[in-house]
Amino acid sequence: MLQSADAGQIQSWLEQINTFSATPGEGTTRMPFSAEDLGARRYVKGEMEKLGLVVTEDAAGNIFGTLPGSQPELAPVWTGSHLDTVIHGGMFDGICGVVGGLEAVRLIRAAGIVLRRSLSVVVYTNEEGTQFGSGCLGSRALAGLVSLADTKEFLSLDGVSLYDTLSGLGYDLNKWDELPKKTGDVFASVELHIEQSGRLEQNQKAIGIVRAICATLYWEITVHGKQSHAGGTSMDERQDAYMAACEMALALEKINKASKSAYTTATVGRVAVYPNASNVIPGKVVFTVDVRDAEYDTKQQLVAEFRGEIDRIAERRGVVVELNELENDRPVSCDKAIMDIIEDSARRLDIPYLHTFSGAFHDSMFVAAFAPAAMIFVPSKNGISHSPAEWTDFAQIADGVNVLASTLVSLCNQV
Amino acid sequence: MLQSADAGQIQSWLEQINTFSATPGEGTTRMPFSAEDLGARRYVKGEMEKLGLVVTEDAAGNIFGTLPGSQPELAPVWTGSHLDTVIHGGMFDGICGVVGGLEAVRLIRAAGIVLRRSLSVVVYTNEEGTQFGSGCLGSRALAGLVSLADTKEFLSLDGVSLYDTLSGLGYDLNKWDELPKKTGDVFASVELHIEQSGRLEQNQKAIGIVRAICATLYWEITVHGKQSHAGGTSMDERQDAYMAACEMALALEKINKASKSAYTTATVGRVAVYPNASNVIPGKVVFTVDVRDAEYDTKQQLVAEFRGEIDRIAERRGVVVELNELENDRPVSCDKAIMDIIEDSARRLDIPYLHTFSGAFHDSMFVAAFAPAAMIFVPSKNGISHSPAEWTDFAQIADGVNVLASTLVSLCNQV
Repeated sequence: MLQSADAGQIQSWLEQINTFSATPGEGTTRMPFSAEDLGARRYVKGEMEKLGLVVTEDAAGNIFGTLPGSQPELAPVWTGSHLDTVIHGGMFDGICGVVGGLEAVRLIRAAGIVLRRSLSVVVYTNEEGTQFGSGCLGSRALAGLVSLADTKEFLSLDGVSLYDTLSGLGYDLNKWDELPKKTGDVFASVELHIEQSGRLEQNQKAIGIVRAICATLYWEITVHGKQSHAGGTSMDERQDAYMAACEMALALEKINKASKSAYTTATVGRVAVYPNASNVIPGKVVFTVDVRDAEYDTKQQLVAEFRGEIDRIAERRGVVVELNELENDRPVSCDKAIMDIIEDSARRLDIPYLHTFSGAFHDSMFVAAFAPAAMIFVPSKNGISHSPAEWTDFAQIADGVNVLASTLVSLCNQV
Repeated sequence: MLQSADAGQIQSWLEQINTFSATPGEGTTRMPFSAEDLGARRYVKGEMEKLGLVVTEDAAGNIFGTLPGSQPELAPVWTGSHLDTVIHGGMFDGICGVVGGLEAVRLIRAAGIVLRRSLSVVVYTNEEGTQFGSGCLGSRALAGLVSLADTKEFLSLDGVSLYDTLSGLGYDLNKWDELPKKTGDVFASVELHIEQSGRLEQNQKAIGIVRAICATLYWEITVHGKQSHAGGTSMDERQDAYMAACEMALALEKINKASKSAYTTATVGRVAVYPNASNVIPGKVVFTVDVRDAEYDTKQQLVAEFRGEIDRIAERRGVVVELNELENDRPVSCDKAIMDIIEDSARRLDIPYLHTFSGAFHDSMFVAAFAPAAMIFVPSKNGISHSPAEWTDFAQIADGVNVLASTLVSLCNQV
């Protein structure tokens, strides 16, 4: 019989890990393979050892803390998340899933439960992608989507390649080809994560069972207008790149809100105006478009509609648009069987839950390429994430860990 | 009888002055009192002397090249403009009016005309305001609007005060109080300038007679929203600062286009989005608002309407707005009597003209505070200015100089 998760233990781990930040007092900044990240990794590996886990690392720096099962020949169950953060981010995004995994293992061991399958707490490398080019780097590599050649192209913000960084830290790049997993290698994966949205809080639910992880469409749009004098150029003779960009942003928002998709978001997050002087009509604007959708088809439909609207606005305003598609992944559905076990665990524990979607991408999206995967969300206060104001009560995480631990026990005993 | 202006002479002067640029090949950059500006000033003073003008400079660095009249006790007539440029600007904005003044003097002397009133070609200090805080610094000082104390506050981009800069160059700051002119000190002022707009070109007119110089309303608006995760935060729970800012920009444009004003423009030229990451909903946006209007009342009406719209948008979107008014000058009407002389000159010379407005501010706006002032515009190719692509054919400037010279002769002989 599993005991209840200890909010104090969860707090202690989270706070200890949070001491490894490049911006103390201004949120958490832990870039992959920075001094802070290396410190946090070292600390977590130490805690894994204290819990009796066998600690290994692969060529991509993914950490595995494994509790061997009684039938180690069976494919293992994974749980875990990431330790790296965005710049001036929070102390929960990712870390909560690592700490949750540790606490689940502690509960299982404390209850004297012997699992049939091995259980690994995984720390995936560079989920946020603040440097080295690509988000979810570690899980992408496990899915066989990152070649050794890629590692020479992916650069840190200081221009050092991932290849040189990993080599310098002693990782054996000769083993890169051993990274990719195939179906059957992993029996199941469950990731605990903060919701990064306000739905659980608004609906007064303790956990969310994720139906699908929305993949990102990521465009960079450049609007070329005509730079000219703000006073001298009458309104009728303008080709104002910024006004066109504003109209496009609002069109995106409108189309997105009218979508029939189960869950979809649209964001213009990065904007650069040229020459960016108060008395000069912008001649060029570059902005990003981030669209997430629970279903690929509704996303493509939305995007086609937006593309048409962009062209109409450009035509009407006499500006020229360049569109660069940087990403357009397919959304990933979570494994129905695991979702059912999570739901059953929550019901038995009397923990209120709802079914939801993940607008953010997660390592589970790539793990799902080779293993049945699912996610458990815990609430984010005011829905805020990627911000120093990111918050989840430790007791709320404990609720998530109770469901997680119960789910992991079920999965590890399935044959 | 005045001869026709020499486009070759105008070209030569403009090209010589244009050798003084910090960004050769990438437009003209001549910041006030930079090495380039000092070189251009030295060159122009030399050319003034070659034309037989008496060269003086006041404490603010305004240069006066004076052709003494036969009745030097009468108030003089001024013509001129500025030599400084914006960063990566063109070779005509301002310089055209200085060179035009030189060519007018050359024509008057070549014709053997003796003027009753003295005629000064003026080079005003720091019209663009790229450093030392304030645009139209020289003419503002002549209008008594810059105190000696101010010169200690106005800093170069390197943080050196205007006071120290002028002192270092040998200007006698003890004479600062002698700068302000009073009504009657100057009989009339006519400034030749490029239009910085496409109206002359579109209407196939050679010169524009300026009715009024629009003053600028300059606001900095900060929109405070809620920074959050682009995927995790559903559309309904957002307080997206950027979408609000876009709606405000488009509202400004719409209100401006609907205005009944004779001439008005509205521009959002500078925009900063925070944190400016593709996957984060903007929590803050700072943008500038630049409104010009030929009439103060219509401007105030437009601005009040815009203010109301800002509040409605902020309310609806749950964002908070901070508004900082940095400038709100009154537009200046040009002197009707001088406008009539310009029109008469153009008609006699058979040079096609139209009446127009200046959306840009000019030194004449401040000269008008103490003297009857008017402006003559020559066309800007494609309406472009404040850009390396700024262009006016030398023959087009010659047309403007012909009207200018004729106007100056009339004014200088009026008693």
